[in-house]
Amino acid sequence: MLGSAILERRLELEVSQEKLAEMASVHRNYVGKVERGEQNLTIETLVRFAVTFKCKPSELLAEAGL
Amino acid sequence: MLGSAILERRLELEVSQEKLAEMASVHRNYVGKVERGEQNLTIETLVRFAVTFKCKPSELLAEAGL
Repeated sequence: MLGSAILERRLELEVSQEKLAEMASVHRNYVGKVERGEQNLTIETLVRFAVTFKCKPSELLAEAGL
Repeated sequence: MLGSAILERRLELEVSQEKLAEMASVHRNYVGKVERGEQNLTIETLVRFAVTFKCKPSELLAEAGL
């Protein structure tokens, strides 16, 4: 699931959900929803997370088994 | 751009935009908007296109340089 891939990356960065939200310019509560799989991300938001994690969006999807 | 990757895959399948829309269960006009880069796809819609093209969503993104 994409949420777990994003959670893992966040933990690697050792930042809170709030901090990741700030880094990726998304709403404070959004990261929690994404990590719980409650949010159907857009490609643009996926790109923001990938930029924050310094990886490719396709790599994030592959880590999620997609 | 993701739109061109989807266009290329569609042409390989030799199907019209309308037919791809039907195969991927999206609105008839949606494929044209996606191919022109006017639509910010969600991951779920990307997965639908990938299933239709019998490839992985991460492969589609990689083909789009993402």
